[in-house]
Amino acid sequence: MKKIEHIGIAVNSLEDASVFYEKLLGVSAYKQEEVISERVNTAFFKTGINKIELLEATDKESSIAKFIAKKGEGIHHIAFEVEDINIEITRLKKEGFIVLGDGPKKGADNKWVVFLHPKSTNGILIELCQEII
Amino acid sequence: MKKIEHIGIAVNSLEDASVFYEKLLGVSAYKQEEVISERVNTAFFKTGINKIELLEATDKESSIAKFIAKKGEGIHHIAFEVEDINIEITRLKKEGFIVLGDGPKKGADNKWVVFLHPKSTNGILIELCQEII
Repeated sequence: MKKIEHIGIAVNSLEDASVFYEKLLGVSAYKQEEVISERVNTAFFKTGINKIELLEATDKESSIAKFIAKKGEGIHHIAFEVEDINIEITRLKKEGFIVLGDGPKKGADNKWVVFLHPKSTNGILIELCQEII
Repeated sequence: MKKIEHIGIAVNSLEDASVFYEKLLGVSAYKQEEVISERVNTAFFKTGINKIELLEATDKESSIAKFIAKKGEGIHHIAFEVEDINIEITRLKKEGFIVLGDGPKKGADNKWVVFLHPKSTNGILIELCQEII
């Protein structure tokens, strides 16, 4: 793992939460992006080389809507940047982690992404991501 | 904010969780440390310039024990490294954030630390920290 790429935070309103995170972090969002496949609107804030990603559901079937209905607003996932996502998937499967889906898919902010099932990660949703070059 | 210094994760057993995080991150803990004032045992893992801090309560009155009793194991706080913790405290108080305690105190891993009340931070416990030189 190269670094914590970002922390994903589920919010009810991207607009309201953005005002709040601007004040906290002292910077404005550098990007807003809809990820249609995930049914979310996202906003990204830089904090040094790390990022905070705010996630707002675009419909009730979004995993973010379900997360908030169950647990309320809060930290949704931790994303680690990796050098080679396919090598990491192979390594983690061997270690007993459950990798969701059929392999890396295109996520927000120009990344290949994959998630590990929280059942295999102590209840925490872990994302691996690799910059698309 | 200079970077995400670490993510603090509340765990039932430092020993069990350390085995798990070693597998996930591919590295061993570089430090274990008891913080008597906070009633916790901690273990730190490096992931690039960022860290994961595991926190285990040393008694029932520890805030970590109370957190786990209420919410279960999981992400407890996000810590941001700052250049000057006193300047940040002044800035954030002006922005309406509630700063806990009377000012920075010595935390784990050779840091001045202070926490913002989750009531003022969208439900997320935020730590600010500055390396003690």
